[in-house]
Amino acid sequence: MRIPLIAHIRNAPPGAMNDDLIAGAITAILLIPQGMAYALLAGLPAEMGLYASIVPPALYALFGTSRSLAVGPVAVAALMVAAALSEYADGEAARWMSGAMILAFEVGALLFLMGVLRLGVLVNFISHPVLSGFTTGAALLIVLSQVPILLGLSLPRGAAYETVLGVWHNLDAVHLLTLVFSCVAMLALLLARAPLSRALRQLGMPPRAALLLTRMAPLAIVAVGALAAARLQGAEQGLRIVGAIPAGLPLPSLGFFAADGWLALAGPAVLIALVGYVESISVAKALAARRRQKIDPDQELRALGLANFGAAFAGTMPVAGGFSRSVVNFDAGAQTQRAALVTSALVAVVAVFFTHWFFNLPKAVLAAIIVVAVWQLVDFRSVVRHLRYDRADGASQVATLLGVLIFGIEPGLLIGIGLSLALYLWRTSQPHIALIGRVPGTEHFRNVQRHAVQTLPTAVFIRPDENLYFANVAVVQKFIADQVAEQGDITDVVLVMSAVSYIDASGLEMLEQLVQDFARAGIRLHLAEVKGPVMDRLKAAPEVLEHLPVHLSTEGVFEALQASSPEFAGQT
Amino acid sequence: MRIPLIAHIRNAPPGAMNDDLIAGAITAILLIPQGMAYALLAGLPAEMGLYASIVPPALYALFGTSRSLAVGPVAVAALMVAAALSEYADGEAARWMSGAMILAFEVGALLFLMGVLRLGVLVNFISHPVLSGFTTGAALLIVLSQVPILLGLSLPRGAAYETVLGVWHNLDAVHLLTLVFSCVAMLALLLARAPLSRALRQLGMPPRAALLLTRMAPLAIVAVGALAAARLQGAEQGLRIVGAIPAGLPLPSLGFFAADGWLALAGPAVLIALVGYVESISVAKALAARRRQKIDPDQELRALGLANFGAAFAGTMPVAGGFSRSVVNFDAGAQTQRAALVTSALVAVVAVFFTHWFFNLPKAVLAAIIVVAVWQLVDFRSVVRHLRYDRADGASQVATLLGVLIFGIEPGLLIGIGLSLALYLWRTSQPHIALIGRVPGTEHFRNVQRHAVQTLPTAVFIRPDENLYFANVAVVQKFIADQVAEQGDITDVVLVMSAVSYIDASGLEMLEQLVQDFARAGIRLHLAEVKGPVMDRLKAAPEVLEHLPVHLSTEGVFEALQASSPEFAGQT
Repeated sequence: MRIPLIAHIRNAPPGAMNDDLIAGAITAILLIPQGMAYALLAGLPAEMGLYASIVPPALYALFGTSRSLAVGPVAVAALMVAAALSEYADGEAARWMSGAMILAFEVGALLFLMGVLRLGVLVNFISHPVLSGFTTGAALLIVLSQVPILLGLSLPRGAAYETVLGVWHNLDAVHLLTLVFSCVAMLALLLARAPLSRALRQLGMPPRAALLLTRMAPLAIVAVGALAAARLQGAEQGLRIVGAIPAGLPLPSLGFFAADGWLALAGPAVLIALVGYVESISVAKALAARRRQKIDPDQELRALGLANFGAAFAGTMPVAGGFSRSVVNFDAGAQTQRAALVTSALVAVVAVFFTHWFFNLPKAVLAAIIVVAVWQLVDFRSVVRHLRYDRADGASQVATLLGVLIFGIEPGLLIGIGLSLALYLWRTSQPHIALIGRVPGTEHFRNVQRHAVQTLPTAVFIRPDENLYFANVAVVQKFIADQVAEQGDITDVVLVMSAVSYIDASGLEMLEQLVQDFARAGIRLHLAEVKGPVMDRLKAAPEVLEHLPVHLSTEGVFEALQASSPEFAGQT
Repeated sequence: MRIPLIAHIRNAPPGAMNDDLIAGAITAILLIPQGMAYALLAGLPAEMGLYASIVPPALYALFGTSRSLAVGPVAVAALMVAAALSEYADGEAARWMSGAMILAFEVGALLFLMGVLRLGVLVNFISHPVLSGFTTGAALLIVLSQVPILLGLSLPRGAAYETVLGVWHNLDAVHLLTLVFSCVAMLALLLARAPLSRALRQLGMPPRAALLLTRMAPLAIVAVGALAAARLQGAEQGLRIVGAIPAGLPLPSLGFFAADGWLALAGPAVLIALVGYVESISVAKALAARRRQKIDPDQELRALGLANFGAAFAGTMPVAGGFSRSVVNFDAGAQTQRAALVTSALVAVVAVFFTHWFFNLPKAVLAAIIVVAVWQLVDFRSVVRHLRYDRADGASQVATLLGVLIFGIEPGLLIGIGLSLALYLWRTSQPHIALIGRVPGTEHFRNVQRHAVQTLPTAVFIRPDENLYFANVAVVQKFIADQVAEQGDITDVVLVMSAVSYIDASGLEMLEQLVQDFARAGIRLHLAEVKGPVMDRLKAAPEVLEHLPVHLSTEGVFEALQASSPEFAGQT
């Protein structure tokens, strides 16, 4: 297998080593609290988030074709893991952990297999509006799931409405100290974004240094939060803290192979793999385009597959290329995946030596980090934009969003994908069909309802604007028959096939039947402007072509019919 | 609600009354044994088949728009009823009967609703190859289900392979007397078709009389079979006979409303409704076309819906327009649905007065009638034809056929529908894209790989032969980018949109991104020959159109670019 990292380092610009070191450090600082937070979001112990930030990014660094994609635990996948495991594990901690590993292994196997079979195109069937609706819905679900933690309530995991009701009924049980930690942490995180960076630059700090400082904010907030909680003896006052995190590195573990439920988790694994891949490839492509670099989707699948195998053997949850973290990595100047190796090493150092620093860290602070991070994924403006441009796209997006919120993350995604495909099929089953005529003085033919064109008294020119296939042949056939019946005195019907790129067996049967029906009524059917691939196929049905003259140009038939017509009628 | 029968009778040709009487009698003679046989096939008592042949056809006669469709119990629907009820009723006879009524009511409600909502187009999504594969598979399943009865074996209902194995293991238990009845009946039925009709005409009998005689064959065989079984005291020798059929007409019954399982039977009811409607509408259309009459699909749905309501209240199973019986009715000269009223009345007379005639009728003779009737539905030639013309169509057909045989009648149909739609979507996701040039001396543009055409040195003309939508935008975008990268020195890219009838939001985003990417490289993107409906939609996105010149004709851009080009390169 190829190791693109070697070529990337060899071709990197001078000074790239330095850039990668700094970018790797910045990403690590962001990743450590996020990783732990996403592990908790997935229902796993905090150290699992660290483990997922060590081995998988290092594996991706070797095999990935993106120079700046930051692989590791991501919010949406974490939520999907929680959704899959809450049924599977039924609250049993050991089962929850082995389930996460099974998911990581299955996700890895699926991605690797898709890479080998070059099936990356399958994700094309998830449309942008569906993905956007899904991401917004998932982000809202994540925010909602953190609300009880921010309020210091302990509610069981449940559907969105259950959480809302639970919070409402327990409003009198809100833990005020927790809420103070939550609010301060969220405020600090928001201020550490644009405002802090602007202020630092106004103070004359160089951009790279300003970036480094703002990116350190989450870790600083974590440190201050942990110190404050220790100082106030928060745990004794009912503040939930992270508690003891075992120090050390994950040992390769194969125990999960013996666990049951591989089949039950395969469905969720497919969706986690697809969503993780779509997120990763979109970011990778967008960042590569900015520097005119290339992404190889099949190699990406294999690299992400290996990263997830790494996650499974490191005893942790599925990983993907994160959107915001990759952008941070890129903005921090990462030139190659050497930056990811730096990140991985720094997280490992923390895992071995410094986990006790997080003992007193309030869970509410981690929840604040999650909420502020995923809130960027919420995007209602694109709903409006899509609804305005295309009702089908808008409807798919709204359905996905509502589906995720009402029925849950997996049903919501499936509803969205199914609806977008069904709406496309429905559209092709009700095609636009134009009666066309010649634009005077040209060889161009246009819709008689939109342009002033010439028509013939005894011939109709019909242009079906869709492939002729089973879902629409009945509609097309009826349109043609109705036109002929309406116009009377017709001797020739010309089907202009410029928009037909495919005729299936049902379409062929329709042509055959039209030829027969028309022959009885003394009408000839013609085809014009048949595309090469369609013609190749029709040649396999000589019994139909025999009675069906095919013309290269519409103009040619028009002139021939005009010459043979008893009278010529111009119509404008 | 309209009653088309009145207009049909008023507009019927002279002598139609006589024709309808004879046709109605012939159809009744065919229907009586078939109806009882199909009731047994559905797992119901024989009289249910008679009841389904009285009320439903009379209701359809009033409201249907087909003049010759023969509505009543049909083989494929009977098999689907059996498949649905074998799980639902679990062998309990009373539950089996109320289940059949629930199915009939649900089928009626679905069809009526589809008619009111004008949703008849939904059946367009069942392609001809899928329907053909389904019918062949169902016919083979029906034949297989009758084999144990023909051999006098009593095996439990089961999957196809279970029946095969069951017959094999019980081959030593074959009941010879039963087998003799079976073989004689099948032979007689086969001889009564073409050979008898040919012989009678050679003897100089007028065609109508010959037809009447050959159509009487099944009833004659039933009579002879019953008499022979009585004479041989077959029942005492282990020959299974129909036994006592209660005389009388069905009383309206509403007991089934109280039974449970309405939801569990709704899924099968949808499929029975769809399949029944497709069969009915196909026959109705084909027969109407022969006499240049019109079928109104929405009225058909409502009429078939009422017929099934009638079936439910008459305490029997779902009905549809049968293929072979309708052809018989048409060939026998039926001019209006008055023929169906005659049929209905004659069956009622039999149900009231003559059911005891069938007491000694061997079930094997009814099985023989089923086998000979459904064998006509088996069609392997169309598999070969479809495979030759289009691999996707052939594959859908084969998958449906095998799905029905291996997984059962409902999963098989769903596999076929799903696969045919998936293959169409897959095809549109991998579109044909042509590089085109001008045919010298004309305004026509054709694929550079198929025709000798002129191209320009600094411009590429690209024609995507498919709608631009989410499933293919990545592929189209890559093709365009690759062409530009390969050719170097390109200043203009022209997308010829003659085959694009729809651009969704993802397609629009692709155009937007191409414009931006190209602008950075100093390349202009143009559109040409944009269809009216597509242009209307693009106008809703002025931010994209602003940087994207749209030309009426490809020729126009070609000439303009040729004039501005530093050198002109002709390529042939």
